[in-house]
Amino acid sequence: MIAPEVEQDLAQLARAGRLPDLRERLRRIHPADVAEAVIDLPSREEALVFRALPRDKAAQVFAYLPSPHQEALIQSLSAEEVREVVSGMAPDDRARMLDEMPAEVTKRLLETLSPEDLEQSRVLLGYPENTAGRYMTPNYASIRPDMTAGQALEHIRRTGRGKETLNVVYMVDDQGRLVEDVRLGSLVLAEPSTPVREIPDPVLVAIPVHADRAEVLSTFQKYGRVALPVVDDDARMLGIITMDDVLDVAEQTATDEIQRLGGVETLDAPYAQVSFVSMVKKRAGWLSALFLGEMLTATAMGYYEREIERAVVLALFVPLIISSGGNSGSQATSLIIRALALKELRLRDWWKVMGREVAAGLTLGVVLGVIGLARIILWQHLHWKDYGPHYLLVAFTVLAALVGVVTFGTLAGSMLPFLLRRLGFDPATSSAPFVATLVDVTGLVIYFTMGSLILRGTLL
Amino acid sequence: MIAPEVEQDLAQLARAGRLPDLRERLRRIHPADVAEAVIDLPSREEALVFRALPRDKAAQVFAYLPSPHQEALIQSLSAEEVREVVSGMAPDDRARMLDEMPAEVTKRLLETLSPEDLEQSRVLLGYPENTAGRYMTPNYASIRPDMTAGQALEHIRRTGRGKETLNVVYMVDDQGRLVEDVRLGSLVLAEPSTPVREIPDPVLVAIPVHADRAEVLSTFQKYGRVALPVVDDDARMLGIITMDDVLDVAEQTATDEIQRLGGVETLDAPYAQVSFVSMVKKRAGWLSALFLGEMLTATAMGYYEREIERAVVLALFVPLIISSGGNSGSQATSLIIRALALKELRLRDWWKVMGREVAAGLTLGVVLGVIGLARIILWQHLHWKDYGPHYLLVAFTVLAALVGVVTFGTLAGSMLPFLLRRLGFDPATSSAPFVATLVDVTGLVIYFTMGSLILRGTLL
Repeated sequence: MIAPEVEQDLAQLARAGRLPDLRERLRRIHPADVAEAVIDLPSREEALVFRALPRDKAAQVFAYLPSPHQEALIQSLSAEEVREVVSGMAPDDRARMLDEMPAEVTKRLLETLSPEDLEQSRVLLGYPENTAGRYMTPNYASIRPDMTAGQALEHIRRTGRGKETLNVVYMVDDQGRLVEDVRLGSLVLAEPSTPVREIPDPVLVAIPVHADRAEVLSTFQKYGRVALPVVDDDARMLGIITMDDVLDVAEQTATDEIQRLGGVETLDAPYAQVSFVSMVKKRAGWLSALFLGEMLTATAMGYYEREIERAVVLALFVPLIISSGGNSGSQATSLIIRALALKELRLRDWWKVMGREVAAGLTLGVVLGVIGLARIILWQHLHWKDYGPHYLLVAFTVLAALVGVVTFGTLAGSMLPFLLRRLGFDPATSSAPFVATLVDVTGLVIYFTMGSLILRGTLL
Repeated sequence: MIAPEVEQDLAQLARAGRLPDLRERLRRIHPADVAEAVIDLPSREEALVFRALPRDKAAQVFAYLPSPHQEALIQSLSAEEVREVVSGMAPDDRARMLDEMPAEVTKRLLETLSPEDLEQSRVLLGYPENTAGRYMTPNYASIRPDMTAGQALEHIRRTGRGKETLNVVYMVDDQGRLVEDVRLGSLVLAEPSTPVREIPDPVLVAIPVHADRAEVLSTFQKYGRVALPVVDDDARMLGIITMDDVLDVAEQTATDEIQRLGGVETLDAPYAQVSFVSMVKKRAGWLSALFLGEMLTATAMGYYEREIERAVVLALFVPLIISSGGNSGSQATSLIIRALALKELRLRDWWKVMGREVAAGLTLGVVLGVIGLARIILWQHLHWKDYGPHYLLVAFTVLAALVGVVTFGTLAGSMLPFLLRRLGFDPATSSAPFVATLVDVTGLVIYFTMGSLILRGTLL
């Protein structure tokens, strides 16, 4: 974490033009922290601080910056400076940046690239978005399968500089096929004369180049590796994905999941960068779908119009009752979705879960029902509100309805994720909004049915 | 991913008692995949397959199993077998397992540990839950700061076997203080005669032993390291945390965030393992708090009782209108919470966001309002429902209310996370439920106010 004082220092040194002091100061700060400080600076000082960085550190800091800041910097640096920074970036970071920039900036950047870098970026950007091909870098360390451990180490010493990582090196045969991977640590531990093929390492795990984001993430999570090789359909080695990129992927996946639970189509870009029109479109779609579903509540209410006319007091508790159903439903949904995602629960557990959730729903319903009952009786006795001569019956209607609605909400909320998964959908995509609509409509039916039963002959 | 055929094969080989074939089959499967297969097997075959594993692989597979399966296996293995498995586990995995087992199992396990392993587990379990001390392993590779690269490599070759990772090694001085860390790759690349202190590596980053989970995670995310050292207040080296443990931490953090957005107190354990009573307690707390908040809707509705009595038709659209406010609010909240968490937005951006969200809310409100208006007019003309002679005015009331409610919902949903953050709270903790309650109550007031204005002199 960079302290605010340090940030102020950097800004002051930059403004005062004290470049040697600024350089000395920056030398001792990690590139990720420099990036954090740069983001917080006014844009004029941003470029000043950035220019004071040594060449290779500048490229590292640049890779850490969010894309609006990258864009601003590109605009304010000279063509030569841009070329230096961009050529110093890792190929995967560079491809990602080119992809995120507006077209005219990308064009300018492409002009600064060397022919090899240009070709590399073209290849990486040729893979579909959110697939392994987009996350990989071709910058890995390789050895031949017929080397000994000593030869391999010597080969790495000569060729390993500037690779994305040396933690794992890859045995690639003459046809470019991936044979095995071996950890550098295992190479160091082995007798120098041991053939590398005999160095025991876990079973080879490789990611197909067209694997999607979820598969990349789950492969890393499952095998706990710091880097994984990416291969094409013929097992030819194309590149590697490293763990630090995967943490970013995990973050993006969590964002998508949270946005979908909130009923928004995935934005695919930072909030501040999405255009107003495209953001409103993504939100309007879901909101309208939910609205169409919720229109059923108007139909249900219409069906009970006569009951409401006779006992207006019933209408007063409609929002309270349906929101309780919705809240209990979304609790259950979020618990079950997550448990399914983490494989704590399997599809075949639905029966066990159902029993448990019905019991939980009944308990929670009774708790809320008793609070509701107490509230009505209390308000009546304190003369804060007059619910009429049959207020006790009304209170019991609310109690009974809450037990029913909360139980139903809990049941629906816990079972819908199982159902969606069974039908082959991602439970996270639509469970929460579906549950809300389903529970609102059913909640009204339960409430008014309870009302008819309990209030028949008195209010109704 | 392990294919279902392979799982069936394993089960059949186990049932048929064909141990040599089973062993040969298992040899070629990654421990994580063996664990996945074991979980799916009936419990009798589970133990059979497990016994067929070579000793060190058995410990690895065991570490991958969820704790109910670990517990079942411990019950069915002999004391000697348990001792072998447990002593083969990494110290951090072992400590975590001891922590998760029921007391009587933990007791049995502790009896099987060697005095050193026992002491190690005691130390790790002495740190508070969810802090760096709990995630670290003392099993790291260290070198002395006065070594050369060649000496360091030789030292690692002699002492490095069985360490959690060799990707990063740590220079520790005579007082046990952490001086620097250096990547094994940099050691290999360096001239053998180079003093290790001169090998250029990024700035040292260390995690304080009492750092909480969020800090551990954000440090890894920020610096993209595969392992980070853990130090006490005197910079003494205590252990390391590796990236694979951090991915688990990231998963747990996402679970907590999703559960809190769903309005549940964090469960802290897999769904199937939490006792019924403690689960209901955690859910009842939030649900009751929300219920108390939502009781304000009954108060608000009570305030408009006379309007409802005169124009029952107004009551019919209450659920539709307040749910639209809630939905638009939770969209905005989930977008902003995430953007704040990822630092795409800063506190000072609230003003910009407000302008944007008001515009978005107005647009979305008009979209929903027009759908609502069309629905009422259509139903009336198709004679599906009779909303009375003033149905057009009712339809315009609904339109106006939807514009107001959706705009307010969007505004409240987007500003509350800023407010909570400003006050020092975690925006994820309570934004969504707060917004729902706030928007429900305000939505009712907006709706009935619009009704009074538009229907005065006709229905009201």
